[in-house]
Order: sequence, then C-alpha cells, then structure tokens
Amino acid sequence: MKSLVESQMVIIFGATGDLTRRKLIPSLYHLERKKLLTRCTPIVCLGRQDYSREEFLQSLDINGSVDNLNSQVWQSLAERIEYHRMDLESVLADDFQSCIAGIRQRYACAGNSLVYLALPTRVFQGTARLLSTLQEQTGWLRVVFEKPFGEDARSAAELNASIRSVLDEEQIFRVDHYLGKELVQNILTLRFANTLFASAWDSKSIDHVQITVSETLGVEKRAGYYDRSGAVRDMVQNHLLQLLAFVAMETPKSPNPESLRDEAVNVIRQLEPVAREDVVLGQYLEGEVDGDRVSGYCQEPGVAADSTTETYVAFRALIDTERWRGVPFYLRTGKRLGRRFAEIRLVLRQSADTAAIFGPVAANTIIIRIQPDEGIALAFNVRSPGESGRTESVLMDFCHHCHFGPNTPEAYEAILRNVMLGERNIFPRWDWIEASWHYIDHLRAVAARPVGYAAGSSGPLEADTLQAGNHHVWHEGVTRQILPLPFHHVRRSD
Amino acid sequence: MKSLVESQMVIIFGATGDLTRRKLIPSLYHLERKKLLTRCTPIVCLGRQDYSREEFLQSLDINGSVDNLNSQVWQSLAERIEYHRMDLESVLADDFQSCIAGIRQRYACAGNSLVYLALPTRVFQGTARLLSTLQEQTGWLRVVFEKPFGEDARSAAELNASIRSVLDEEQIFRVDHYLGKELVQNILTLRFANTLFASAWDSKSIDHVQITVSETLGVEKRAGYYDRSGAVRDMVQNHLLQLLAFVAMETPKSPNPESLRDEAVNVIRQLEPVAREDVVLGQYLEGEVDGDRVSGYCQEPGVAADSTTETYVAFRALIDTERWRGVPFYLRTGKRLGRRFAEIRLVLRQSADTAAIFGPVAANTIIIRIQPDEGIALAFNVRSPGESGRTESVLMDFCHHCHFGPNTPEAYEAILRNVMLGERNIFPRWDWIEASWHYIDHLRAVAARPVGYAAGSSGPLEADTLQAGNHHVWHEGVTRQILPLPFHHVRRSD
Repeated sequence: MKSLVESQMVIIFGATGDLTRRKLIPSLYHLERKKLLTRCTPIVCLGRQDYSREEFLQSLDINGSVDNLNSQVWQSLAERIEYHRMDLESVLADDFQSCIAGIRQRYACAGNSLVYLALPTRVFQGTARLLSTLQEQTGWLRVVFEKPFGEDARSAAELNASIRSVLDEEQIFRVDHYLGKELVQNILTLRFANTLFASAWDSKSIDHVQITVSETLGVEKRAGYYDRSGAVRDMVQNHLLQLLAFVAMETPKSPNPESLRDEAVNVIRQLEPVAREDVVLGQYLEGEVDGDRVSGYCQEPGVAADSTTETYVAFRALIDTERWRGVPFYLRTGKRLGRRFAEIRLVLRQSADTAAIFGPVAANTIIIRIQPDEGIALAFNVRSPGESGRTESVLMDFCHHCHFGPNTPEAYEAILRNVMLGERNIFPRWDWIEASWHYIDHLRAVAARPVGYAAGSSGPLEADTLQAGNHHVWHEGVTRQILPLPFHHVRRSD
Repeated sequence: MKSLVESQMVIIFGATGDLTRRKLIPSLYHLERKKLLTRCTPIVCLGRQDYSREEFLQSLDINGSVDNLNSQVWQSLAERIEYHRMDLESVLADDFQSCIAGIRQRYACAGNSLVYLALPTRVFQGTARLLSTLQEQTGWLRVVFEKPFGEDARSAAELNASIRSVLDEEQIFRVDHYLGKELVQNILTLRFANTLFASAWDSKSIDHVQITVSETLGVEKRAGYYDRSGAVRDMVQNHLLQLLAFVAMETPKSPNPESLRDEAVNVIRQLEPVAREDVVLGQYLEGEVDGDRVSGYCQEPGVAADSTTETYVAFRALIDTERWRGVPFYLRTGKRLGRRFAEIRLVLRQSADTAAIFGPVAANTIIIRIQPDEGIALAFNVRSPGESGRTESVLMDFCHHCHFGPNTPEAYEAILRNVMLGERNIFPRWDWIEASWHYIDHLRAVAARPVGYAAGSSGPLEADTLQAGNHHVWHEGVTRQILPLPFHHVRRSD
C-alpha cells in the first residue's frame, strides 16, 4: 500500500449533519495528528444552516467527540476549516466554482479534490452539476457516497447511472464503514496470511457460520429514514452481506484490489435465493434495555402506530460454490436487543476419531469479535484438570487493543485515508451493490411479516427455528475471559 | 476414567530422601485435602535414618513444601504416617512382613499396597525379596519405580528382568513425572479433541517442531549421580523423548490405555538413528544466572575437574512415518541456561498463496507451554493497524491457571492418583523404555565431546548449526502478553 501524503481540498456536502460532527471532523483531526494531512489541505464545509465560521466550529463540539484533544493539533486543523452556506437546490454552479477557485488560489494547492457527500444519495441530483465543475481541475477528483446506495435494485441502478453520467467509476467511492473497521479488514489477513486457518476455511472443516450484529439502540432520531428502510435494507444489504463476502470469498488471484473486489462480487452472485422459511423478521415491543424501560417500535416518535417495518432480521444463507456448498451461513441483526456486539463465528465440524477417544466434545469455533472488545479467539478443548477425563471448551484469545493499544484508526479515519490514497479495497464496487440488491429484493419479497420481540431480549424466538433442523444454536457472543463476567441474557418471549 | 477412592497401604522406600519430602508427602497431603484417601490409608515410610516418628515428621518440613497448609488436613494425614528404620541390605524379609502385617491389622484395611521406591533403581535387588512377601496379600500390589530406569539398554533390560522375576507387568509403574504435568497430558487432548489442530498435525502442515526444556539450576547436590549420567540420560531418554512421543504418535486405535502406549512405542521405534552432526553436547562454564555469578560445571563440588559429562544437549530427530517424514524435530535441554522454561513449538509451513498476497509473513506456530506459566498459544498474523499493509505476528493465548485457577494437581499428585486408580496412560511401558534406550545409546555413541557454554547463556552457539541448513532458528520461549516484558537473553559466546 502507498503511504503518500498529498495536498488536496476536502469538500464536505451536508456538513451540518451528525456524520460530519461525529465522524468526519474527528477523523480529519486524527489524520492531522498523525501528520497525514499537508498544510495545504483546506476543509471546505458546505451546509444549509446560516452559520458563521465560528458558529460552525462551535457546532462541531470537538471536545465532545475527541478524547484527550490536543488543542495544538485541533488549532492547526481548525484554521483550515471553512464554512459556506449552500442550498443545493438553488446554488449556481458558477458561484460554487468560483468559491472553490478562490479557496484554491489562497492555498496554492494542486487541484486534488476529495468530495464527501454526507447527504442521502437521493439528493444526489443537486450536487451533480456542481461536481461537474470540479472535473475541469488538474488534480484528481474523488467523490465519496454514503449508504444507503438506493432502496432496491432498480433505484440503485438509476442512482448509479446518474452518478456515472457525471463521474468515472474510478472517481466513485461508495462507503460501507464496516469495511473500515479493523477487525473486518483483519478477516482477510486471518484467512489468507495464516495457513492454519486458510486450510480449515471450507466445507470440509466448517460446519456452519454465524454472523451477528446486535444493537441495543432503538430507532433514535432516524425514524423518518428508518421506517421507510427497515433492518434488511439498513444493515443487511451492506454491512452483513459485506461480512459474509469477506468470510466466504475465494482467494483473490492477485494482490490487485480489483482482484479482491472481483471475488467479493462472485460470492454474492453465488448466494442461493432464500425461501420464506429461511427468513424471520421481527419488530421490537416495549421492554427493558440495560435496566431502562423502553417503548416499542410503533410507539417511537415518528413511527406509525401500525408500522410493519422490521427492526430485526435473521436468515439462513447458502452459497453455491465448491468451497461452501451445504454450509449454512446464519445472519442476524436487530435493534433493541439485550446486548451490543458484532461477531462472526465459524463452527468447525466434529470428527469421528475424537468421539471415539473422548466422547462428545464441543466444536472448535473461530470467533472474530468486530465490536466492542475487538479480537480474534478460538474456542477449543482442553482436559479438565484432575482425573475426570472430561474435556472443557476454553478460549484461546487475541485481544486487539491489549496488543496494539488504543491508537487503532476508527472506521471513518480508515475510510478517509483510503480515499486520499486512492485505495479501493474497502469500498464496494457497483457490481457488488447491484448483486446484493438483487439478493435483498428477493429476500424482502418472500419474507413473512415481522413478529414481535421484547426490547432487551435476544430477538424473536422464531429465529431459533432457522437452525433447529441442523441442531445448531445461536451463540450469544463472548466476552474475553479476563474481563468481568459476560452479560447474561434473560430472554423473554412475548 | 474411574474416580474410585480405595483403601490401601502406601509404603515408601527411601522415605528420608528429597523426593519424599518435596513431592510425595505434599502430594499425599493434597489427595487427603481432596478426600481422595480413605481413613484406612496408612503411610508407611521406610528409611535408613535413625529417626523417631516425631523426628521424621519434623524432617518433612511440611510448612516449607505446602503453601497455605490446612493444619486440620495435615493433622489427619500425619496421624497415619509411620516411620520405620530399615536397612535394605540387612533387613530380614520376615521382619518386614510382620511389620507390615502388624500395621495392616491395626488399620483393618483391605490388602492393597502401593509401594513407592524413592530409591535409585540400582538398589532394587535389596527390595525385591521384601516385595515378594507382599505378593501373598489379598488386594492389589502396585510398585512405582523412579527414573532413571537403567543406564543404557543393557542395564535397563537386566533391571527389568530382575523386576519381572518378582512382579507382573501390570504391577509395575515406571514414573516419568513429566507425563503427570497437566500441559503434557493436554497434548493428547489438543491433538485428538480439536479438529482444527488434528487436521494440521502432519508433514503437510508442519514445517518443523522444537522441544525445549531449559533449566537455570546447575547440578546442585546431585553431582554424584549427575556426573555419571549427564543430560542425555538424565533428561532426554525419558522426559524429552516422551514429549516427542506425545507430539508425534499416531491416533490411538481405541480409548484403551494400551492403545495409547502402543502408539507411543511405535513412534520411538520409527526414530531414525542420529548422525554425529545431528547432535551437539555442551557443558556449562562459569557465568551469571539471574544476576548471580555461578561456577562452571567442573568447579562444582563432587565433579572432577576434567569431567566430560554433558550438561546440555541439542539434537535433530527425524521420524520415519508417513505423517512425519522429512519434518525435523529439534530437541534440547540444558542446565544453567538463561531462563527456565519447557515448551513445545510446532511451526507451520508457509503457503505460496499467502506470499502472493501479503509477501513474507511469520509462520503460524502452535506453542504448548509446559512450565512455568502453563498454557497453549497460537502465533498468527494480523494486520498492523493503519495503512502500512504489513502483517504482524501476535499470540492467541490460553492461560491455564487464569482459567482453572491454582488448583491443578502437580505432577506427582497426578502420578500417585493414577497409580491408586490403576490408570497406566501416563506411565511408560517397558517396550517404550527399551526402544528409547536403543535410540539414546546410539546417540551417545556418535556424539562429539561437549563444547563449553557460558552459564546464563542460551547454550552453545554450535547448537545453531543444527538448524542452519533448514533456515530454522531456536525460539527462546514466550511469556504471555499480559505479563511483564519477557526476559531477554544476552548470549555470551565463549
């Protein structure tokens, strides 16, 4: 990978939104701290609010979003932050162009532009004509799109066509911030830089796979968006299918990033269409989370009392490749569950030899903990000390922050830095997005309506039926052994 | 495994020696504490010293050998400890028999006898006629023999014949206390109760194996014995070859203990005879260990100034089986080295696929830490956080005492308990000992004379040449990541 530090203008559309304050500015701060931004990197923030520059800087509440702020670093970054009020509907392309040209002149930079659209993609049309004006500059232009990328296969294709009418494919960076997470990037290292795991990574060794992204939060302030979207489109089409792609893809044929992206597309295309009984949707009812009484989804502000939007989904995926034929991949995600964790488990097959000597033992399981408490563990069997002759399943654990300390880049820092480097490994390509929407459109079409589950539970009991035929069970996430006792669920059926 | 608690008479010959005080009595104490001895278990201690019972109990210094002694438990055990002065040369078999009969009458026990010969086996003749008298009793008779079992193949065969003239094979328990160590017993569980490891346990996956037993102690008070024996006979013929057997044996054909012992013999028989250049012997010179100046081996009290006894040995073993053909096993042990640790490392092969994507990476390594800090770890590769694209080798670790606490039985407790249960898994069978002596006799015959190494170093530099042709290097032992920084060696050549 390159480790270039280039000058560039960073232009953020939608700069007064949450994403800018919570993720983009803190990430730019960390890049500045690590000297990965040149002095010639103006941060041009564009938004609809009528802020002065000072009011805008104030609104960023940098002390609230960065721990142990180094005020010198922040000062140096803040000096280069500009704010301009801009209404996408009405602004004239010429005015935008001359505003940018003016800044560029002041900074005497090369003409590189990193444009971050911190906006819903449905308003893309408003920015298209502005982006055209940047095409005329001398340096590179890279434009970053946030999810959701469309609402189904059709709208995604329309959006993509409209983007491609203004930008070339290599100028487009579609963000899935899960791919910026350190432990997600580590999936490929685990698989391809470790012969022990590489040789076990197929249907001969793996019995089944579980991918869980479990949230405790409810719909929060995103009801307007969420109630139209639901868990399948908000989480599965992007994050969960990306995790599946990283876990299940074939070995890339070369270190070329396109090679990696080719394999990520291939695996999504090989997913078998799900049947109705392979999917369980759920919607949270009132309940208790972390000791607090919380309301049901339909009682949330901004949600219709009779909404049938799913806040939970569990499904069984099968992949029609030589490597994975017959191995069930169980995926699930939901809001207002009992515990916040994201984890991938690969449960290995048992062997007859083992049973002959030891009787029944627990399956070896490779556990990738994406969050919180990032790490990689292996559940394996040891002797119970003493004379019982029993075995006990224990964890062999690698704790990421124990080893690397707290300085691992957050997902959005990795995202921004990769755009600056022009590295595409962690950005889904259009054909990937298209393939995943086709899979998701079918899944949504066949799924039954959501069933209720109590907030604070581990989801609808119906999700267990997905695995029942195979005698598998959902795992509820591990906490490292040296931490206090793991959180225990009290599942309440409803 | 049975978990029977039977009454029995424990008879210890050589009871005034170190082994009884440091290992046997503390182990009996722990068995008493765990209620694994009945009240009808007299401990009959026989020795040459003219002690009263009270003097003998005093000499055991139980507070010095057991942490946090529970005085009630000790009281209950001590009440059953008898001491009798006995000169093996002169005692009459009739006197011995009536002494035992008297005790047995007082205890009204079943006639089971566990006899522990805490004596050099060369004085076995003196005990033989006494043991014969125990054959007449009604219960079982089990006799435990300490190492060394002979001094070469010939003397071991003579000893065995002389033992077999008095005892049946199933009455004989030959101790290798390494096999009582929890992490040594765990080797079989690791291999045969874990499909991930089971499927990697052969020459297709393993590049080479290292077995190290590194001691910081010198010859201490054992010069008389040690100078006649040397490291090869004191450590390799038994402990190191047993570790090799556990690591390399084929899967036992049944859970029957004899099946396991069959495979342990087979692997020793398949060892290729070593060549002169496969062995390096060493002898420690003066140096510094743990900050203390220590003298060289030839300056130790009781050692001849021109002794050529080896205190260190490193050698390369090859096993002529389908599973291991071509995989070097590097074994070494020595006294007065820089660090005390016993560890087995299986270093996995690299793959061309990995190199194509990641360039050169560290080999996956399975690490079995026998002592201190018992555990099992896997060295594997993760991404270095950030953008370098580099990988870093880290440890995924299982710490035995962190998980099971401090109550894991010590080796001698396991040894005693297994004899009481009649379990033979962890006792080398005669054919194993015979095969290992044949291998060792040849090794000793071809080896060059010892070279010097500084006390406190990691052994003679010549040991590196064993591995040089294969581009392997000796590993110096790991300490778990959550402990303070590992000890670093300053190797001083001499």
